Amino acid sequence: MDLIKKVIQNIKEPDIKIYEAAKERLRHQARPAGSLGILEDVGARLASIFKTIDVQLTNKIIVTCAGDHGICAEGVSLFPSDVTHQMVYNFVKGGASINVIARHAGAEVVVADLGVDWDFEPDLPIFHKKVQRGTANFTKGPAMTRAEAVKSLKNGIEIVEELLGKKPVHIIGTGDMGIGNTTPSSAIIAVYSKLPLEQLTGKGTGIDEKGLRKKIDALNRGLAFNVPDPNDPIDVLSKVGGFEIGGIAGVVLGAAAHGIPVVCDGFISTAGALIACELAPLAGKYLFASHNSVETGHRFMLDYLRLKPLLDLKLRLGEGTGAALAMGLIDAATRILFEIKTFKEVAIDDAQ
Amino acid sequence: MDLIKKVIQNIKEPDIKIYEAAKERLRHQARPAGSLGILEDVGARLASIFKTIDVQLTNKIIVTCAGDHGICAEGVSLFPSDVTHQMVYNFVKGGASINVIARHAGAEVVVADLGVDWDFEPDLPIFHKKVQRGTANFTKGPAMTRAEAVKSLKNGIEIVEELLGKKPVHIIGTGDMGIGNTTPSSAIIAVYSKLPLEQLTGKGTGIDEKGLRKKIDALNRGLAFNVPDPNDPIDVLSKVGGFEIGGIAGVVLGAAAHGIPVVCDGFISTAGALIACELAPLAGKYLFASHNSVETGHRFMLDYLRLKPLLDLKLRLGEGTGAALAMGLIDAATRILFEIKTFKEVAIDDAQ
Repeated sequence: MDLIKKVIQNIKEPDIKIYEAAKERLRHQARPAGSLGILEDVGARLASIFKTIDVQLTNKIIVTCAGDHGICAEGVSLFPSDVTHQMVYNFVKGGASINVIARHAGAEVVVADLGVDWDFEPDLPIFHKKVQRGTANFTKGPAMTRAEAVKSLKNGIEIVEELLGKKPVHIIGTGDMGIGNTTPSSAIIAVYSKLPLEQLTGKGTGIDEKGLRKKIDALNRGLAFNVPDPNDPIDVLSKVGGFEIGGIAGVVLGAAAHGIPVVCDGFISTAGALIACELAPLAGKYLFASHNSVETGHRFMLDYLRLKPLLDLKLRLGEGTGAALAMGLIDAATRILFEIKTFKEVAIDDAQ
Repeated sequence: MDLIKKVIQNIKEPDIKIYEAAKERLRHQARPAGSLGILEDVGARLASIFKTIDVQLTNKIIVTCAGDHGICAEGVSLFPSDVTHQMVYNFVKGGASINVIARHAGAEVVVADLGVDWDFEPDLPIFHKKVQRGTANFTKGPAMTRAEAVKSLKNGIEIVEELLGKKPVHIIGTGDMGIGNTTPSSAIIAVYSKLPLEQLTGKGTGIDEKGLRKKIDALNRGLAFNVPDPNDPIDVLSKVGGFEIGGIAGVVLGAAAHGIPVVCDGFISTAGALIACELAPLAGKYLFASHNSVETGHRFMLDYLRLKPLLDLKLRLGEGTGAALAMGLIDAATRILFEIKTFKEVAIDDAQ
């Protein structure tokens, strides 16, 4: 826990003075006040994080964390668990959705194995951060031990540290890959929102009504058996979470500790972000929501975290695709703040 | 009318076979079917327009059409009409919102005077397409003559022709500048939706409740006095429209006739697009909605045109800013279609 505690202590409140100065500049730009909507606040928040109104998000990285899920034994997913490791290879080859969208966004994709049920070749160019080959079926016991939950968080933090050891990173997008991982994500928001599972459980990659009932049943049994304690986020993560969800939570903590903003992808990434924010509420100051997922539980997570998504494109893919799609808008928000002239600047130009 | 008739005849249905082939490819990509939401249909529609699944939107142009409005005499706007020409100069200098956002999107901005109440220097680098120095106050008579309405459409078409005379154009975003122009836009959607003006009238650049009541009153009087005929879109444009709205409608028609997709900005641009689609329903096949404006009447326009906006960022600026912000997503949609590998392609790669 020492690393995690240290990291949490290192997360500082962004600079409120720069935030106010940015808002002031936005208000005085030569356009109706507030007319650029949500992007204005995004720009001001980034300014407060970077302590400058000229934020340059040069190096963008998507960290896609992968893991497998014992809960798949309950028939909660349309796809077999084997797809998780197959997709990891697909990411490495560059032909998957996240590769295509990140390339378009000018972002680099890094893939991390937090708990895939497969032995990857040691020289495969991914972050080898496996905690365990897949979680246990959480209807019959905890998904992982407490020590494993802590390790998944640490491993996520390490990913950020190792990335920063190579070059500066200006923004991180989170992503996930893990067959069955909408189920632990629904469990996590159920613990915190206390809403009925029917409202929080979606069809994932596309199960039918019967599959959905099975999934809700498995969730009910899992939560009843484990009774996760919402006041102890590591307890929640260990009992009904996933290794990639812990990894994502660690990435959020690590990024926030280094003053790096994080663009959250969809349902699973936001579950990870939620765990991070329960451990360290200040981490939320570094979080930006990319999109509003089709997964029904996602908006309750966003509400809980008080995040406003930038996109509503009916996405339900994961991998970090929503985060990558939002990066262009986040970049635009930095340019809006810095480059649009104020009425005063326009007048000065006119006088010259 | 000859040019307009010819242009309308030149608008062809996009290639439905390519659309189907694109949908087929999207369905077989190595990801859950439908998981990239609205972007999938955007990609397929662009493929059908360009008759290829590898659409390259290299040359992007934002056409920002400007005009003044006699209706401002009724106190419908927070800003004086002088701001219209001042903003045209600001666009030319490159410091306005649309310049900043378009630069970020890799789009060129061209500005067109369709009816600004100002004599611009002939060498000012804009499209000089002035029909008249501002419309008349449409509470007291038609906003313009029928001949002027036709001329504004023709001038918009000419802008596209002249742009294409210089270099290929792959996508056009529409934009507007005109103090008071949410008022004619509300009038246009009122004519077509037949909904009460209270539902269709917003606060524009930021008038208060009293201003809003004045605006609705002016609209009621203008519509009662003019009785625009919804079956005759040029009648609607002339009686309660604007020169820049006619220009935008012309741009949409001209682009569609040349097989160029158009990204519609917000409330005013969509009013122009609506007039274009009433004149030539096939033009709608070339239209893409960028965002859902804060202006309350906008969603009724989008519904009427059956367009799904890509963004919901609470924008209410115009100038083409929403169109420019959406261009990155539209580009992403082309890459998603072409570059994400199908399960079959992944298997072929694995076998090699």
